[in-house]
Amino acid sequence: MNVVVFAGGVGGAKLADGMTRSTDDASLTIIVNTADDFELYGLYISPDLDTVMYTLAGIANPETGWGIAGDTFQNFEMLARYGVSPWFRIGDRDMATHLLRTQMLRNGATLAEVTHTLSRRLGVKARILPMTNDRVRTVVDTDEGLYAFQEYFVKLKWQPEVRSLIYEGAEEAEPLPDALRAIETADTIVIAPSNLYLSIDPILAIPGMRDAVMNASAPIIAVTPIIAGEAVKGPAAKLMRELGSEASAAAVAQHYAEFLNGFVLDERDAEFQPRIEAMGIGVLLADTLMRDADDRARLACEVITFADRLRPEKMGGCKLNAPTPAQSPSSQPTHADR
Amino acid sequence: MNVVVFAGGVGGAKLADGMTRSTDDASLTIIVNTADDFELYGLYISPDLDTVMYTLAGIANPETGWGIAGDTFQNFEMLARYGVSPWFRIGDRDMATHLLRTQMLRNGATLAEVTHTLSRRLGVKARILPMTNDRVRTVVDTDEGLYAFQEYFVKLKWQPEVRSLIYEGAEEAEPLPDALRAIETADTIVIAPSNLYLSIDPILAIPGMRDAVMNASAPIIAVTPIIAGEAVKGPAAKLMRELGSEASAAAVAQHYAEFLNGFVLDERDAEFQPRIEAMGIGVLLADTLMRDADDRARLACEVITFADRLRPEKMGGCKLNAPTPAQSPSSQPTHADR
Repeated sequence: MNVVVFAGGVGGAKLADGMTRSTDDASLTIIVNTADDFELYGLYISPDLDTVMYTLAGIANPETGWGIAGDTFQNFEMLARYGVSPWFRIGDRDMATHLLRTQMLRNGATLAEVTHTLSRRLGVKARILPMTNDRVRTVVDTDEGLYAFQEYFVKLKWQPEVRSLIYEGAEEAEPLPDALRAIETADTIVIAPSNLYLSIDPILAIPGMRDAVMNASAPIIAVTPIIAGEAVKGPAAKLMRELGSEASAAAVAQHYAEFLNGFVLDERDAEFQPRIEAMGIGVLLADTLMRDADDRARLACEVITFADRLRPEKMGGCKLNAPTPAQSPSSQPTHADR
Repeated sequence: MNVVVFAGGVGGAKLADGMTRSTDDASLTIIVNTADDFELYGLYISPDLDTVMYTLAGIANPETGWGIAGDTFQNFEMLARYGVSPWFRIGDRDMATHLLRTQMLRNGATLAEVTHTLSRRLGVKARILPMTNDRVRTVVDTDEGLYAFQEYFVKLKWQPEVRSLIYEGAEEAEPLPDALRAIETADTIVIAPSNLYLSIDPILAIPGMRDAVMNASAPIIAVTPIIAGEAVKGPAAKLMRELGSEASAAAVAQHYAEFLNGFVLDERDAEFQPRIEAMGIGVLLADTLMRDADDRARLACEVITFADRLRPEKMGGCKLNAPTPAQSPSSQPTHADR
C-alpha cells in the first residue's frame, strides 16, 4: 500500500514513524515542508527535513523535538565565546548534517538528492521528499513587523501577534515531481498533525500541489493538531485565533474541507463530530496523543484502517505489529505541530 | 620594542607565546604562513593561523599541536556515520572558528580582518597577520605524484618522498601591507623554529616579502628547527635530506644566510658554531627545546637579548618575568616546525 504523509516537523515525523512500524515502510513517502529552511553561519538548515529524518533514523531527541538524542553543544559554546549571538542552538552531531547538506548543495545537488543521500546513509527506508527543490520561505507578518520564520519561531518564541503569513517564493516554486507522482499513485494520503499554517499550507501553496491533492484518487485524511482548543506544543492554536479562526478541531477540518475525506478527531473533542460530518467528512474518534513508539504505531494503524473504510475497494487495512520496544520515549506528549 | 616573528604552526606559536611572556606583547607581530590553508566541507581552514591564535589565547591543545584543549569530536563521529572519509579531524569547538571565518570571508572580509576579529575575541593582544590575503597553496611534488599540502601532511603522514615544493599562487599574491610595515619598523625579527620549506619559505616566496626582510634595519635571528640532525616533530629533517640538503642546523643557517644576522643553535649542536660563524652569522648557543611555558619565555628572552648584542644601539635586552604557572605544559617537547 502506498501511503503519502504531508508533514512539518515533530507531529508529522512521529506519525510517519508510526507508519513505518505498522506498514511496509518501503511504500511510505513523506512530503515535507521546507518553508522553515534558513541559513546560519553560511549553513543551509532544513529543520523539518531533519526532524523527519532523525525521527525515522531513530536518533531524534525526544525531549526537544529537534536535533539528535544525546547531542552535545561544544561548538555552540565556542561560538558564544566568539561573541556570536546564539539564538539558534545547533548540536555538534546535528552540525554534521548541515555541513554535508550545504556542501552537497554548493556542489550542485538538489535538496531532494541531498535528502535522499543523507537519509539513506542514516538507514532510513521511507522516502523523505522536500516539497520543492526551490526556495520558499515563510515570512511572518506580526504586530511588531515582518519576521523571517526562524526569527519569529525560535528567537521571539512565537510571541508577536500574527496578522498574516507569506510563503515567499511559493508561487515561483516548482513542486517536486516525485511528490506529485506519489500523490497521484497513493492509496492513502495523510495530513499529519502538523501546524496547518506553518507546515501544511506552505506545501499546498506551491502551484500544482493543491491540485494534485484535489485530483488524488486516494482517500485524504487529516489528523487533528488541536485537542480541546489547544495545540499540545507550538503555536497552532494561538495562530488560529490570531488569524480570525476558532481554535478547534472543527476549524482545522473546515480549513482542509475542500479536499478532505476523513478527519481523525481526538476523543476529547467528540462534541465536534456532528459539525465535521456535516461538512461531508468522515470522522474517526481516536486517542491522537503520541506519547511513545507504540502510540505512534497504534495511531498510524488506526489511520490506515480508517482510510480503508473511506474507499470503495478495501485493501485489508492495517494489522498492527507486536508492540515495539520504546525507541524514543517522549517525556512530554507532543502530537501536535512542530 | 617591536618584535616580528615569522611563524608556521607549533614552533612559531610557542616562541611567540614566549615573547608575550617576556616582552610587552602589544609590540609583538606574528607573520603566519597560510600556504597550508585548505577547504573541507566548504569551510575555510587555516591551520597555522589557528595554532598561533589558540596558543596565544591559552587554549591550544598541548598534546597534538593543533586544535583546542579538551575539545570533543561528536561532529567528526557523525560525519563518519554519514560515511564521510574522516582523514582530517576537526573538533567541535575548533569548528566554530572555521564556521565564523568562512562566513566572514564569504561576506567580503579579508583573511587579515577575520584573523584580527577572531583573535581579539579570544583575548589575544599580539598582532597575528596572515602573510597575504591572497590564495597561496603549497603543492608537494613527490615520487607518488603531486599532492595538496594537507593530503601529503595529514592523510599520507608525510611519507612520500618529496622532489620539490611548489607555492602555487605565491608569485601573484600581494604581501600583507601591515606585514611589510611591521618588518620595516621592527626592532627585532625572528624566524621561528618552524619548518623552513613548509612554513617559512612560502612566506618569503611572496613578492616583496624577501626584499622587505633583506632591507630591514632590525637584526634578523633564526631559531633552529633542527637538533642533532632531526626535527623533534614533523618532516623538516626528512625534507632537507630529500631535497638534497644536509639535515643539520648549519644547513638551516645556510638556507637563511642571505639575510641572517644571528642564529640560535641548540647546545647539543655546538660543533656547528664555527661553520655558521664562518657564514658571517652570529651564534647563540641555547637550550632550544620548549617543554613548557617557562621554557618558551626563557628562550624568547634569550633571543631578544641576543638581538640586542647584534645591533649598534642597545635597547636594554629582555628582563625575564617571574616564572609563570605552566599554562600549556607539553607532554612532548615540540620545539620544531609544525
